[in-house]
Amino acid sequence: MTALQWGGRFGGAADSALLDFGSSLEEDLVLAPFDVTCSLAHVAALESAGVIGSEHAATLRGALHAVDAEIAGGAFTPYARALGAEDVHGAIDARVRELSGGAGEWLHAGRSRNDQVATTLLLYVRERARTARHRAHSIAGAIVARAREELEAGTVMAACTHRQPAQPVLLAFMLAAWSEPFVRAAQRFACVERDAAKYCPLGSGALAGSGLPLDRERAAQALGFAAPSRNALDAIGNRDAALDLAHACVRAVVDASRVAEELVAWSAPAYGYVRLGDAASTGSSLMPQKRNPDPFELVRAHAAKLVGAYAGALATLCGLAPSYQRDLQVTKSQAIAIVEDARATLGAFARAWDAVSFSRERMERAALDGFTIATDLADALVAAGTSPREAHARIGAQVARAEAEGAALDPSFDARASIAAKRTRGSTAPGDVRDQIRSLERELAVVETRP
Amino acid sequence: MTALQWGGRFGGAADSALLDFGSSLEEDLVLAPFDVTCSLAHVAALESAGVIGSEHAATLRGALHAVDAEIAGGAFTPYARALGAEDVHGAIDARVRELSGGAGEWLHAGRSRNDQVATTLLLYVRERARTARHRAHSIAGAIVARAREELEAGTVMAACTHRQPAQPVLLAFMLAAWSEPFVRAAQRFACVERDAAKYCPLGSGALAGSGLPLDRERAAQALGFAAPSRNALDAIGNRDAALDLAHACVRAVVDASRVAEELVAWSAPAYGYVRLGDAASTGSSLMPQKRNPDPFELVRAHAAKLVGAYAGALATLCGLAPSYQRDLQVTKSQAIAIVEDARATLGAFARAWDAVSFSRERMERAALDGFTIATDLADALVAAGTSPREAHARIGAQVARAEAEGAALDPSFDARASIAAKRTRGSTAPGDVRDQIRSLERELAVVETRP
Amino acid sequence: MTALQWGGRFGGAADSALLDFGSSLEEDLVLAPFDVTCSLAHVAALESAGVIGSEHAATLRGALHAVDAEIAGGAFTPYARALGAEDVHGAIDARVRELSGGAGEWLHAGRSRNDQVATTLLLYVRERARTARHRAHSIAGAIVARAREELEAGTVMAACTHRQPAQPVLLAFMLAAWSEPFVRAAQRFACVERDAAKYCPLGSGALAGSGLPLDRERAAQALGFAAPSRNALDAIGNRDAALDLAHACVRAVVDASRVAEELVAWSAPAYGYVRLGDAASTGSSLMPQKRNPDPFELVRAHAAKLVGAYAGALATLCGLAPSYQRDLQVTKSQAIAIVEDARATLGAFARAWDAVSFSRERMERAALDGFTIATDLADALVAAGTSPREAHARIGAQVARAEAEGAALDPSFDARASIAAKRTRGSTAPGDVRDQIRSLERELAVVETRP
Amino acid sequence: MTALQWGGRFGGAADSALLDFGSSLEEDLVLAPFDVTCSLAHVAALESAGVIGSEHAATLRGALHAVDAEIAGGAFTPYARALGAEDVHGAIDARVRELSGGAGEWLHAGRSRNDQVATTLLLYVRERARTARHRAHSIAGAIVARAREELEAGTVMAACTHRQPAQPVLLAFMLAAWSEPFVRAAQRFACVERDAAKYCPLGSGALAGSGLPLDRERAAQALGFAAPSRNALDAIGNRDAALDLAHACVRAVVDASRVAEELVAWSAPAYGYVRLGDAASTGSSLMPQKRNPDPFELVRAHAAKLVGAYAGALATLCGLAPSYQRDLQVTKSQAIAIVEDARATLGAFARAWDAVSFSRERMERAALDGFTIATDLADALVAAGTSPREAHARIGAQVARAEAEGAALDPSFDARASIAAKRTRGSTAPGDVRDQIRSLERELAVVETRP
Repeated sequence: MTALQWGGRFGGAADSALLDFGSSLEEDLVLAPFDVTCSLAHVAALESAGVIGSEHAATLRGALHAVDAEIAGGAFTPYARALGAEDVHGAIDARVRELSGGAGEWLHAGRSRNDQVATTLLLYVRERARTARHRAHSIAGAIVARAREELEAGTVMAACTHRQPAQPVLLAFMLAAWSEPFVRAAQRFACVERDAAKYCPLGSGALAGSGLPLDRERAAQALGFAAPSRNALDAIGNRDAALDLAHACVRAVVDASRVAEELVAWSAPAYGYVRLGDAASTGSSLMPQKRNPDPFELVRAHAAKLVGAYAGALATLCGLAPSYQRDLQVTKSQAIAIVEDARATLGAFARAWDAVSFSRERMERAALDGFTIATDLADALVAAGTSPREAHARIGAQVARAEAEGAALDPSFDARASIAAKRTRGSTAPGDVRDQIRSLERELAVVETRP
Repeated sequence: MTALQWGGRFGGAADSALLDFGSSLEEDLVLAPFDVTCSLAHVAALESAGVIGSEHAATLRGALHAVDAEIAGGAFTPYARALGAEDVHGAIDARVRELSGGAGEWLHAGRSRNDQVATTLLLYVRERARTARHRAHSIAGAIVARAREELEAGTVMAACTHRQPAQPVLLAFMLAAWSEPFVRAAQRFACVERDAAKYCPLGSGALAGSGLPLDRERAAQALGFAAPSRNALDAIGNRDAALDLAHACVRAVVDASRVAEELVAWSAPAYGYVRLGDAASTGSSLMPQKRNPDPFELVRAHAAKLVGAYAGALATLCGLAPSYQRDLQVTKSQAIAIVEDARATLGAFARAWDAVSFSRERMERAALDGFTIATDLADALVAAGTSPREAHARIGAQVARAEAEGAALDPSFDARASIAAKRTRGSTAPGDVRDQIRSLERELAVVETRP
Repeated sequence: MTALQWGGRFGGAADSALLDFGSSLEEDLVLAPFDVTCSLAHVAALESAGVIGSEHAATLRGALHAVDAEIAGGAFTPYARALGAEDVHGAIDARVRELSGGAGEWLHAGRSRNDQVATTLLLYVRERARTARHRAHSIAGAIVARAREELEAGTVMAACTHRQPAQPVLLAFMLAAWSEPFVRAAQRFACVERDAAKYCPLGSGALAGSGLPLDRERAAQALGFAAPSRNALDAIGNRDAALDLAHACVRAVVDASRVAEELVAWSAPAYGYVRLGDAASTGSSLMPQKRNPDPFELVRAHAAKLVGAYAGALATLCGLAPSYQRDLQVTKSQAIAIVEDARATLGAFARAWDAVSFSRERMERAALDGFTIATDLADALVAAGTSPREAHARIGAQVARAEAEGAALDPSFDARASIAAKRTRGSTAPGDVRDQIRSLERELAVVETRP
Repeated sequence: MTALQWGGRFGGAADSALLDFGSSLEEDLVLAPFDVTCSLAHVAALESAGVIGSEHAATLRGALHAVDAEIAGGAFTPYARALGAEDVHGAIDARVRELSGGAGEWLHAGRSRNDQVATTLLLYVRERARTARHRAHSIAGAIVARAREELEAGTVMAACTHRQPAQPVLLAFMLAAWSEPFVRAAQRFACVERDAAKYCPLGSGALAGSGLPLDRERAAQALGFAAPSRNALDAIGNRDAALDLAHACVRAVVDASRVAEELVAWSAPAYGYVRLGDAASTGSSLMPQKRNPDPFELVRAHAAKLVGAYAGALATLCGLAPSYQRDLQVTKSQAIAIVEDARATLGAFARAWDAVSFSRERMERAALDGFTIATDLADALVAAGTSPREAHARIGAQVARAEAEGAALDPSFDARASIAAKRTRGSTAPGDVRDQIRSLERELAVVETRP
């Protein structure tokens, strides 16, 4: 039984090397369960339209449930590979026909691969957006939990800009800052999730709709969409939700890569702020002493890779005529590859994060390096009436002298005093940081429950 | 008067070639009016905190309004260029000091370039997201208006996939499909607009907050934000809104590039579906007969360029330590460059669209080329009880015969009959298309009014 | 037996999910035979340095040859997967140890994964650059062969710019033009091939060289390199050859995508210039009449994908500290993925090209559409003393009139006359085209034989 | 006088906003002197072909020399901007016509914008490839000079991989490693330079050659090309040399970004290895003590930006039909923008490099941190007969104990001993490093003199 779903007008055989080249099976095996769901809804639409009778419908449902079990059990993947199917949809179609005799011939009635792929992809996007939202949320939560611990411990450190010491802050304040991008990432995923549940393409046919009286409202409802899509031609070529999800994924991994970079830097003995547990460290095949923070380096590199992959996915669409072109298969494969890679990367980040421990002592020891209290001294002058420019210049000169003499700026003023002196909402002052953490905890609790 | 806002601790002079290299002035001149707005809110915060008295505040306000007028009048740009400022913020600061004597020294009290840039950028993003939303909306509207015209005219054509004739459709149906991505683009811009109005970074200082008791709530409110940002360190390095806008812009231009590609194709005599008016056509310096659809080719190329530029902007962030690094200046410049380029590109697309006219006659003449009614014949067999696979194979063989004989498939069945035979919501059947157009018109009317 | 090549200082076990995340096994299985070659040279270097005796050396050689046979026979891949190795190098090391008892412990003496990976990768690059050069060459050859055929047939057509008819040309001239980028692509591959044979990294250790007296000259020679690399630290982190190859691959696929686009366009009935044979065409699951040029659409999309992938590979290096960082594993994987994808894409392009046939009649019929002889008429005026600007304007006006009247420009002047009137070397005049084809044939014959 | 070089067949006026959108003037002003050179060669070709007489030729030469002087003197840019020209070529054409009366009408005889742009661009590429080669060479030279200094000083340090201490090395060895990528970059530029001097497109017309008997050999020779290009259609759309140069530029900046990253890291007090002089440091508008390594951060960010820009340039070509499409204007603009940005970035890198000073004392103090001699201890065991795996495991365990006890690994063995113990060519041993530096100096001297 061939897996090809077309061919009546062709005399010669297709070139098998070209079929292989055109196959997206490997990339879209993850779509298998969603295709089954989509096909079950189509069976209902066919039955409701009177295109197939209840007997055929029952047979098809039985076959689809059997395929679903094969997918879950792991038997389907080797089947599909052995078949040499063009894609996962063709492989499921072939398997259904094997399992259901003549009824199987009716599964594809009034359906094109175009509306089938578009619908299946949306179901996948919805599910992956939901799990990605949970992942972003749990990363934010893990960082905030650490912020709370460090707030209790009162750990102080020098925050940097340009890798140069800037001002003393609480480590809790820094950790709270690190959690924020993941909160925004979770919101981005939630937005994709909502958008992907709006319009159901099923019943759009190849591009013009169908001559069979399919009940699109019913199919949309069965699949959890708010409504059928408005225009068949737009619906079958629309990859916006998949791209939106891919984009949100890339952004979240970029966010993770920034924290990863800091943890790699802080793991160096020069800083010594971080020790990465054995579970997440890697050795060297030659140098016996090595303890390398590989997972965080890989997170960093995956961010760069995914940025390129997303550009590649978008580039397939530049100047591509509207409606379906085969290029969209590559767009789809790229989007899926990005989503799955990001899923693995964020998962690895989360696991490696759990192996991080902070050296409070090393941080505190370095908190005043680099004259980090200079801004406080300038602020004090300003509060006493000196103009900011004048204050900046005077303290700047004082730093130059202190540096030349190897002296401290003002021995009476320490990191904790600097931190406590902050007076604006959102600052590193302990009370403000406590408020931030509480607010984050509240927001994360809300995000948890809603779509 | 130097434009540099720092320097007290430095002995040697900065290398002017390096200062030039580091200047972002050209890229961020578009931020000038937004910096003034931001600075006015900071003056209010300083006054309210008692850092400056009402006299200084009034002087600063006067100077800022004067700068605003210079910006609007065109005098500011040459001033800033002549000054050799590092960026537009430094140039405005310098000009305010020129205009306000000693008071000018106080404008930067309790403020860092970091929170100033972050705030100004958000104000810019909000405004550009709003105008981009309007632009996407008006493009969608212009296409839908044309769809309505063609619906009345009843123009039929062959819709293609893979550039091969697929099925007969109404031109109105195709145009309605073309408008949909712009409706989604407008929603994407609306989303950015809302997000960019949430949190105000002003008062975050360099990264830790300020020792001066600035009223951040008041500043946030004055600038139209819902609230001050939660964490100073996150706020000063957060470029998410600018990236979200850049991304939405790239996507909208990619959408436009797809329609542009079709219009370029259809302008070729081989199709002859489109004639582009003189206003939007270009000739050749050598070939006197040429009439080239350059604006649409450029739209297509700008899409590709912007995809790369967005990848470049994201790549600056991969593995960049959290908090402020100078790299963020390039991120910002890239985001602005993308937004401004997309603005020009979508504007050009809209103008060139107005010069498009369709040749109904050429379209209709080709509507049955390529056996576009084959699906209808197969659907008829299915409706009469033949299985879809069998029907597909039989009509496929019939096509092969007809092609070999140079004959038509079924002379009694024409494009209009095919179109009328569609029975699913969202199809190309005239009644469905009428519904789609009405729905689009309603949705566009709503988008128009809301943020 | 564990596949990890390190661990002495570690107390806790590595997290297996993180090991999975960090594994590059799937991506670098293609390196397996090259690693064996590299390891054989290392055995010789160890023996020559007296680090191992001839018995151990013989045992190791035997084991490596056995592994080589397993790789060729297909048994090695499932072995490596079952092992859960970090990469292919670890898997081969583990298998050698299984096969060679105590001697196996010595294979890695004086070698780090760093110099091993760098060397293996260069061997891979050399081989793939060579086969890619042959591929580019054979594509150019296939196009030139078709050019010669069409030259004999004298096929004429309208060449376009901006998809608008420009001037009549010989199809042979156009095909000759299409072959040129592949000639340049072959040169680019030849350049990579030469560069990748220059310097051998083996013996560089982790980064500082080795304390064992390894004979690097001998190893370099055994592996076909001109010399050992100059600086160990540079050598172990140098991915330039792999990136150069990836880049040459991307460019070649972009070149192919441009021809592919034209073939897709010309396959549309509107042009009808090209018919794609059944072997390379694809049908539709819904529309029985479809004959889609999918392979060429996929080539087009792979170009876009690869452009993004290359950007991703380069982005992993931006701001990456010199020397080895784990990020380089992702750089390597990306480079390999690009090379293998391009290999498949160019192979598919070549196969699909063989299924292309041209409709001379359709081309000739359209050769004068769009007033393509206007330039000739203008040239004639110029030759007779009219200034080019004046001539351009006059013929332009004549075109406008002819278009309005639906008339031809000059019935006495046809496409062949236009073509024959060209008088510059490199033109579309038949004699010039004959020269071009001869020159291409000569150049391709030379490229064939040299590295 | 209009700057448009076409228009005879057009009735309506072009939309000025669309002309603005389509103008590439700003991007291609750098091409101005090269266009003049190209035009002078075209005048010679016209004269030699008898299309124009010696009087017209002399007038045109005079006008072109006058324009050249205006370009050099700065007067041309404001002229071109005021004119609102489509591109620099149109602006020069317009100016020549102003300066030369009727003769000016003849400059464009037998020439299309297509061959003119292709030729001008190659001349630009050649010049920029040459200066980029010199720049890469001088950067390599500056680093090697510093390596020689540090070799004399005998500075030792801990080389890292994964930012973890790996092995002691000479700073001179590390600097020699840093210079190598710039040597390769110079070779890449040399290759572009050679390729760009091969084939001259002038005389290719719009795509088919010219009906005027232009002497292409003479023009090629006059412009320093080896020969006229082979095929007119290929020649006018060929942007390979510009892309090759853009690519070589991107790669060189990526190389620079890696050294820049290290210098940023080493400027942090945690390392203290580098002090950046005042000339290249930047302060903060708020924090008076700051001394930020901005130029190196910007180099890093420009690398990321350029990677994206190159992807964008290539993406404009994906699926673009062969021959000239207007999209190529954006390809060209992007290539130029990349080249000019890279030029500025490498220039800034070179200047900032001169402001770098190394703290030998801080480096030496940290050379043994992280048990960097562990590999030497393991090597010693191997040399004494212990298998490498066993040796690795034993020293690994010893490291774990030493770390727990806060003890050194082997007090009798220091960094210098470790360095001296290396026995492979290319290692960090002082004699090897001396050889490397000598070899680099020789190679750089050669690169200096050849194309």
